[in-house]
Amino acid sequence: MKEAIKWCRLDVNGGPSFGIVIDNEIALIDGAPYGPHKHTGERVPLATAKLMAPVTPPNFYAAGINFRDHIEWANQYLGMSLKAPTQADIGYRSANALIGSGADIVIPKDAPGPVHFEGELVAVVGRRAKHLTEEQALDCIAGYTLGNDLSERSFQKSDRTLWRAKNIDTFKPMGPVVVADLDPMDQNITVRVNGKIATSYTTKRAIFSLQHYIARMTAYLTLQPGDVIWLGCDGPTLPALEPGDLVEVINDKIGILSNRVVREK
Amino acid sequence: MKEAIKWCRLDVNGGPSFGIVIDNEIALIDGAPYGPHKHTGERVPLATAKLMAPVTPPNFYAAGINFRDHIEWANQYLGMSLKAPTQADIGYRSANALIGSGADIVIPKDAPGPVHFEGELVAVVGRRAKHLTEEQALDCIAGYTLGNDLSERSFQKSDRTLWRAKNIDTFKPMGPVVVADLDPMDQNITVRVNGKIATSYTTKRAIFSLQHYIARMTAYLTLQPGDVIWLGCDGPTLPALEPGDLVEVINDKIGILSNRVVREK
Repeated sequence: MKEAIKWCRLDVNGGPSFGIVIDNEIALIDGAPYGPHKHTGERVPLATAKLMAPVTPPNFYAAGINFRDHIEWANQYLGMSLKAPTQADIGYRSANALIGSGADIVIPKDAPGPVHFEGELVAVVGRRAKHLTEEQALDCIAGYTLGNDLSERSFQKSDRTLWRAKNIDTFKPMGPVVVADLDPMDQNITVRVNGKIATSYTTKRAIFSLQHYIARMTAYLTLQPGDVIWLGCDGPTLPALEPGDLVEVINDKIGILSNRVVREK
Repeated sequence: MKEAIKWCRLDVNGGPSFGIVIDNEIALIDGAPYGPHKHTGERVPLATAKLMAPVTPPNFYAAGINFRDHIEWANQYLGMSLKAPTQADIGYRSANALIGSGADIVIPKDAPGPVHFEGELVAVVGRRAKHLTEEQALDCIAGYTLGNDLSERSFQKSDRTLWRAKNIDTFKPMGPVVVADLDPMDQNITVRVNGKIATSYTTKRAIFSLQHYIARMTAYLTLQPGDVIWLGCDGPTLPALEPGDLVEVINDKIGILSNRVVREK
């Protein structure tokens, strides 16, 4: 059985480069894996590579609220007043906040906390697309990765927008690699904190499927190569993260998005 | 007296290029005007150039609500329930929606309307910046342009996010050019519809200055070259735009951001 293609982006030779994951190595390429590209012939070991977020998205889409158990839990335990969405209205995050697997999550000095993980499946767009049906929707997707939609809950309550809750520098880990072929609506996503499972859920329980989001979005907007769509998380987002913690978002096909938490000095 | 440098981006020779505006011509450059660049020697007439949005921003920031008269007017005439912000929380728009001066604004087939203009001053970031004071804030700005934060008011009421209200393809005209040197907090912004002045206001009346926004933002996030910060609009946003209308956002130093409105076929 043919294994699905895996690709990543890494900081190597003084800049970002895409690479194809082959066994325990990354074969560097010129160009983007979802477009014309060729192998440079250079390989670097996967274990010591400095992984970056797999793409810098021209547009950074996020479902935000897309799972009922998370909504109920957030309302009960975080004092929020979220309502289950009645239509698939996409939200946004900002690219400044992206980091790759292995980089530190830096909590600002003055952030009161708590800071929570939100482990999510992420779809990466591979080609320009508009007016897709649900049946065609996944044709524009180059692959899937993982995201940690870190959330500073005090700022989420105090601010008029989500800028400090969600888009602080380093608050959007994404990676480690992109897997070209999987069923986005049948994936298990697990979050571990310091090696202990904190939460686990299946994307089967999403209120709106990725296919539905893409069909609705592309009725009004053009998806572009490198755009990402984060699908939201289910369930609780505890324990709160403290400096020194290691937080991991895990999927058996994509791997482990792993980041250490530190406090800004 | 030395005139401030003006630059733009245009679609020429089959792709985007930056250029410096010199009299009635655009001198094409290799590289970005806010970084290392050199003149190619090629010039094209400004009058017939196909202008693009001056940058494709890595991060697209928008104050949204930053003027009291607009807040009061929107609450009274649009039935909104906006509150004057008590702190400078930045919001976001999405780059898919950007077009340059001269391009058509396309209202989707099924948009109930009304569609309103919002004429705004836009700051363009020229270099990476974090932890700036208000006194240092403008040092990172490469220049200023104009934006039209078009808003579909039915979608603004019905949707959980602003995605269809603000970020439909073509709903973010930006341009025509970037002027390197002006006082952002002392500019008059006028909007004309079909040649008739619809509204006019001064950025002096902003609740929070650009300097304050930048200082507050960079306490938490890194500004990047090409990022834009839209400053919000004051006053009413009428008349509603209809297919065939010409809408112009005007500033005496930057020029005229001019776009025709059409209905999607």
